[in-house]
Amino acid sequence: MERLPQTLVQLIRVLERLPGIGPKTAARLTFYLFQTPPHFVDEFIKGLRDLKEKLGNCSVCHNIDETDPCRICSQAQRDRSLICVVERPLDVVAIEATRSFSGFYHVLGGVINPLIHVGPDDLQISSLLKRCSSKEVKEIILATNPTMEGEATALHIKKGLEKINKDLKITRIGHGLPMGADLDYADPGTLKEALKGRQVFS
Amino acid sequence: MERLPQTLVQLIRVLERLPGIGPKTAARLTFYLFQTPPHFVDEFIKGLRDLKEKLGNCSVCHNIDETDPCRICSQAQRDRSLICVVERPLDVVAIEATRSFSGFYHVLGGVINPLIHVGPDDLQISSLLKRCSSKEVKEIILATNPTMEGEATALHIKKGLEKINKDLKITRIGHGLPMGADLDYADPGTLKEALKGRQVFS
Repeated sequence: MERLPQTLVQLIRVLERLPGIGPKTAARLTFYLFQTPPHFVDEFIKGLRDLKEKLGNCSVCHNIDETDPCRICSQAQRDRSLICVVERPLDVVAIEATRSFSGFYHVLGGVINPLIHVGPDDLQISSLLKRCSSKEVKEIILATNPTMEGEATALHIKKGLEKINKDLKITRIGHGLPMGADLDYADPGTLKEALKGRQVFS
Repeated sequence: MERLPQTLVQLIRVLERLPGIGPKTAARLTFYLFQTPPHFVDEFIKGLRDLKEKLGNCSVCHNIDETDPCRICSQAQRDRSLICVVERPLDVVAIEATRSFSGFYHVLGGVINPLIHVGPDDLQISSLLKRCSSKEVKEIILATNPTMEGEATALHIKKGLEKINKDLKITRIGHGLPMGADLDYADPGTLKEALKGRQVFS
């Protein structure tokens, strides 16, 4: 990189810091961007600027949107008794795509992970407990990822919720074999959960 | 994507158009960028703007730089008798990194590829022939990639050069086994070139 113009190095250094982009890809993208028509780079700059200027976190569920409360929290026809707790805004997109959830969401903003110094106070947990103290809320679906950190976070939230609202039904999103999977390729952990989570076949 | 805020979709659509970035990665990068500190996005915007405002192509070798002629073309101690012809600016970086080439470069800006309508006139070939008409130039190293298009482009340039300057030595960059390679994993084409390009062992 030492012999490259500083202007190129500057953009390569920014791109390198994005997840999944290494130095080689960053350099390729930079050279690619150089030879794109100017309007493409203008669109790119506009997209980045709007990202910071037009978007914010919903003060209710902490999802990302242009309005506050967000569009999902503003939908009156949704089921107020049901809240699905997820790690990240993209998880909301994934669940919405199933068209099989009619409740509201709560985006934690991550998971408890002592290794990178993320504790419960760094996540939107206290505001979740506050939402759940309302008698309107009947069930909380904990839909953090089935990873070690996701499980620990779900457990932490469960304990907090039990203290606040004893009538609350607390569920965990189902674990097991993904659709289309092959049994003999599944790892023992998944298979164990699939057996534990077996359902009456109807 | 349909339920995402327009501001997010706008940036996802831009990122998707970059080489090697699909819709999933584009969405992940966009959400990642949303939660980065504002100064990171500012740096990103600055990098993109500078790319178009501060950089240009060298009028001699067509490499990318902040100055014209570029820094390599401005180095008086380089060997004026030698020009290495490459496809892209990144190829110049790769060859410079070897610290074993002291001549000048000529960046074609691509290769002849009828499938995507790139003909000889879309590349910096006429300016190369003009440079080579000077008696100062003694050797041209054709260092286009060893692909079908790269070979065809090298052949096309060779024919053009032979017409213009009969005394010119025209060489092709060596093909063969890459260093550290395993003979029985090499494809027949590479092995054939490696045999043809065998050298006296000294």
